Amino acid sequence: MPKPKKANESLTVMTEMVFPNDTNTLGNLMGGNLMRLLDIAGAIAAQKHCNRIVVTASVDNVQFKEAIPLGSVVTLQAKVTRAFNSSMEVVVEVWAENIPAGTKVNTNKAFLTFVAVDQTGRPIEVPPVEPETEEEKELYAGALRRRQLRLVLAGRM
Amino acid sequence: MPKPKKANESLTVMTEMVFPNDTNTLGNLMGGNLMRLLDIAGAIAAQKHCNRIVVTASVDNVQFKEAIPLGSVVTLQAKVTRAFNSSMEVVVEVWAENIPAGTKVNTNKAFLTFVAVDQTGRPIEVPPVEPETEEEKELYAGALRRRQLRLVLAGRM
Amino acid sequence: MPKPKKANESLTVMTEMVFPNDTNTLGNLMGGNLMRLLDIAGAIAAQKHCNRIVVTASVDNVQFKEAIPLGSVVTLQAKVTRAFNSSMEVVVEVWAENIPAGTKVNTNKAFLTFVAVDQTGRPIEVPPVEPETEEEKELYAGALRRRQLRLVLAGRM
Amino acid sequence: MPKPKKANESLTVMTEMVFPNDTNTLGNLMGGNLMRLLDIAGAIAAQKHCNRIVVTASVDNVQFKEAIPLGSVVTLQAKVTRAFNSSMEVVVEVWAENIPAGTKVNTNKAFLTFVAVDQTGRPIEVPPVEPETEEEKELYAGALRRRQLRLVLAGRM
Amino acid sequence: MPKPKKANESLTVMTEMVFPNDTNTLGNLMGGNLMRLLDIAGAIAAQKHCNRIVVTASVDNVQFKEAIPLGSVVTLQAKVTRAFNSSMEVVVEVWAENIPAGTKVNTNKAFLTFVAVDQTGRPIEVPPVEPETEEEKELYAGALRRRQLRLVLAGRM
Amino acid sequence: MPKPKKANESLTVMTEMVFPNDTNTLGNLMGGNLMRLLDIAGAIAAQKHCNRIVVTASVDNVQFKEAIPLGSVVTLQAKVTRAFNSSMEVVVEVWAENIPAGTKVNTNKAFLTFVAVDQTGRPIEVPPVEPETEEEKELYAGALRRRQLRLVLAGRM
Ligand SMILES: CC(C)(COP(=O)(O)OP(=O)(O)OC[C@H]1O[C@@H](n2cnc3c(N)ncnc32)[C@H](O)[C@@H]1OP(=O)(O)O)[C@@H](O)C(=O)NCCC(=O)NCCS
Ligand SMILES: CC(C)(COP(=O)(O)OP(=O)(O)OC[C@H]1O[C@@H](n2cnc3c(N)ncnc32)[C@H](O)[C@@H]1OP(=O)(O)O)[C@@H](O)C(=O)NCCC(=O)NCCS
Ligand SMILES: CC(C)(COP(=O)(O)OP(=O)(O)OC[C@H]1O[C@@H](n2cnc3c(N)ncnc32)[C@H](O)[C@@H]1OP(=O)(O)O)[C@@H](O)C(=O)NCCC(=O)NCCS
Ligand SMILES: CC(C)(COP(=O)(O)OP(=O)(O)OC[C@H]1O[C@@H](n2cnc3c(N)ncnc32)[C@H](O)[C@@H]1OP(=O)(O)O)[C@@H](O)C(=O)NCCC(=O)NCCS
Repeated sequence: MPKPKKANESLTVMTEMVFPNDTNTLGNLMGGNLMRLLDIAGAIAAQKHCNRIVVTASVDNVQFKEAIPLGSVVTLQAKVTRAFNSSMEVVVEVWAENIPAGTKVNTNKAFLTFVAVDQTGRPIEVPPVEPETEEEKELYAGALRRRQLRLVLAGRM
Repeated sequence: MPKPKKANESLTVMTEMVFPNDTNTLGNLMGGNLMRLLDIAGAIAAQKHCNRIVVTASVDNVQFKEAIPLGSVVTLQAKVTRAFNSSMEVVVEVWAENIPAGTKVNTNKAFLTFVAVDQTGRPIEVPPVEPETEEEKELYAGALRRRQLRLVLAGRM
Repeated sequence: MPKPKKANESLTVMTEMVFPNDTNTLGNLMGGNLMRLLDIAGAIAAQKHCNRIVVTASVDNVQFKEAIPLGSVVTLQAKVTRAFNSSMEVVVEVWAENIPAGTKVNTNKAFLTFVAVDQTGRPIEVPPVEPETEEEKELYAGALRRRQLRLVLAGRM
Repeated sequence: MPKPKKANESLTVMTEMVFPNDTNTLGNLMGGNLMRLLDIAGAIAAQKHCNRIVVTASVDNVQFKEAIPLGSVVTLQAKVTRAFNSSMEVVVEVWAENIPAGTKVNTNKAFLTFVAVDQTGRPIEVPPVEPETEEEKELYAGALRRRQLRLVLAGRM
Repeated sequence: MPKPKKANESLTVMTEMVFPNDTNTLGNLMGGNLMRLLDIAGAIAAQKHCNRIVVTASVDNVQFKEAIPLGSVVTLQAKVTRAFNSSMEVVVEVWAENIPAGTKVNTNKAFLTFVAVDQTGRPIEVPPVEPETEEEKELYAGALRRRQLRLVLAGRM
Repeated sequence: MPKPKKANESLTVMTEMVFPNDTNTLGNLMGGNLMRLLDIAGAIAAQKHCNRIVVTASVDNVQFKEAIPLGSVVTLQAKVTRAFNSSMEVVVEVWAENIPAGTKVNTNKAFLTFVAVDQTGRPIEVPPVEPETEEEKELYAGALRRRQLRLVLAGRM
């Protein structure tokens, strides 16, 4: 088994501006565009953990509580919470900042699962995660339960 | 209350080609790009149902069972399953077709919730859905249970 | 000769939203962006008919009678009308919908010709089209005359 | 009537590289993307002639005789040939260059019609064109016949 | 005068994947696309410092020592080094990571100048920068000399 | 040594419209997008001179004196000023035109250096430049001094 890596080694920070083409008729970021960013940030974090090509296996329920207007600065912070055999759970937190107004809101928290694959697309083993902080340990512990829920939802358990 | 509309009136079919920039290092559609398409197809279906601006309130767990290679034709079919007060559940089914190979695979089935809003972004009432076919009736019935699950996950119940 | 296929087997429906970047200074869809969509919808229909890679050989005169504002939902419906040796004529009809206003207008009807090619780009034979409905039969009949006109315009007849 | 302008004052040269996302499965520029460029080049030429916002009224039959591979440099040259009341005919010539190979091919010649409009989208008068060179004079003369053909095709004559 | 802010408060981290459309014929990131990222990262850092809309006033000489292949993860780290009256110097450092290969290279270091403007585009005063670390102090000190050089190059001194 | 080519043989004219997604909150072209265009125009000019793949080696200090609003037509004119062994200096001039207002402003003048490379990315020799006009001769003469400055800035001299 590959040797364990610290959760924090996968930390990935992405900062993006909301451009006109990303918005709907109300001038707010479209949900689908935020999901696209969640996936890219999550995939980079998963890649950093396992040093492999990764593919998205699933995205857990995502809620959109806050509209994010044109011109906002969106920050995504992704980190691997736990690794299983070939799959890794990644948590991505999102903040939206209206810089001239000086406001910054935590808009989303999403869990995605990525699978490490070889060049032919077949799953391969990944290193275990070593959580260090309290928050990382909680996320690590909860990952097992979330994994069960999503395998049930996928009809695989 | 606005007068009911048939489920089928919201039917939306989207056909897209997978272009190079939509793919990852393995030459397959990135998960986040498919999520972006799910959101657009779903939003159009929801708009057709309520003739209003809509915003994405949540996306249920999405699984990616099949890789979708560059050059594939992706078909998304979206339909409102049930409306509540201001919110509508939309189901989106996805097929990926490799036309030269003559194969067509059902790759995803996702449920999204959209909320109808006025010009200031405040929720407003939408018409009820009238399911007609057996499948529409099943989706209609199941929508209540899925709504409960997602409001629990959102910490709203 | 490949065995005939029904016109309807190539039916392709595309639904697109008009995003800010697709518009001109008046906030309307630019003609060139609609032409890009005509080409994609047409190419998919042609591919479905012949299960081959296809390339655009020509686009007949296209008229733009209606402006299509930002936020509109554009629906394209493409179908092969007739196949010759390696070439296929495709008709694409376009509707623009302003969903909040509840209006839907038939904005364009265009004929494009695609040619089926092998991996090296050389033309190869395609199946004949079997029209079924009245409309399909009329389009099938008219295709011969349109083919002559476009070969004359191309200086090939 | 606005005072006449020379044909050459509207000359517009556009140079573009063919990027991966512009290509089809064979690695060649998709027809629809070239049409999008024709429209942009033509619109700029028409704008230069009339100093007004313009909209695309029609695109005459376009033929694609040459595949244009990824990495090619595409040059478009657009010029107003003749103006009528509110409408202008623009000719756009296209060359594709494979610079490392030292080849440059004339791939397309297309005629587009643009109409000058005010801020509300209503047609307004444009200056007449003064052709100077032999080629400009020929294009000017031919424009009348092409206009008749396209108005017939548009069912307006 | 607005009250001083610490250099570190403007720290902005951007992580981007190199997608196919960003690359040249050799499959490497095009220089112009990296410059676009430098500008976005720098503008966000400058906005964070002054809580204002900012515009790019100049970009100092940028060198491209390393090719950045398709699929690389590019990390940009931007920070305001010093503020003058309405202008701020921002330093942006760039790293390119080939995650499967486990390599990470410092590819660029660039200085950009942004000017804070009001809604009409007129320059307005910004807070001074308070450098804390040794590195920040060095960058702060050097900023004066770089400012002189660029105002000379701009013909303003 | 490859035989000399005239400066003018590399002349490249690019015309672009400023689309909504290219603009910042003030509705003006973002500096980074203009830098991306400078790089594309310059690379094409350099390619035309040497008939080789080229990569961007450096961009000299660029100043942005003028805001370029949405809907403007931007014209870039690029030309190789001088070639050394494997590197070429290119000058790019930029004009922004507000066509309805009838104004055209010279907004930028930038110098970029491109290096000709073989398929493996290794520098290869390029033809010398033969300046003809007064302006070309001046640019040719000045190129030596600018090269020294940039090699010093790059820590290579
Ligand atoms: C969706 C939104 C309008 C709801 O606003 P709110 O103040 O919570 O309004 P309410 O409490 O009245 O709820 C409105 C409806 O949304 C539903 N809803 C709210 N959160 C939900 C969730 N996470 N999942 C499903 N439905 C949800 C409620 O159940 C309610 O449905 P009903 O009217 O049919 O009973 C608001 O959260 C919002 O604007 N979110 C951002 C939307 C957006 O911009 N998405 C893209 C972000 S990138
Ligand atoms: C082009 C448009 C302004 C013409 O409006 P209209 O009400 O038909 O106006 P008119 O009958 O006065 O015709 C105006 C001019 O357009 C010309 N025209 C109209 N249809 C045309 C066609 N299909 N081909 C060529 N010219 C055409 C007319 O001949 C007339 O020319 P003239 O003034 O030089 O004699 C209008 O049809 C329109 O807005 N179309 C949509 C434009 C657009 O948004 N394009 C992109 C769509 S995605
Ligand atoms: C440009 C590059 C090929 C130079 O390679 P190198 O190993 O330094 O090669 P050399 O030392 O032989 O120099 C080759 C030429 O480049 C020139 N050069 C190198 N760095 C330069 C700089 N910063 N500014 C200007 N010219 C430079 C040298 O002066 C030399 O010119 P000459 O042959 O005309 O005398 C190499 O640095 C490279 O591949 N850079 C990345 C290019 C790229 O991908 N750009 C986009 C990045 S997003
Ligand atoms: C940048 C801009 C606001 C400066 O306006 P101006 O009328 O020259 O204003 P000022 O002379 O008062 O200068 C304002 C500040 O900009 C700085 N500045 C101006 N030109 C500069 C340059 N080339 N490099 C660095 N700083 C520069 C001045 O030094 C001054 O700094 P300070 O206030 O900290 O002392 C103006 O030139 C502009 O709007 N440029 C276009 C910005 C833009 O749209 N960029 C993208 C183009 S695609």
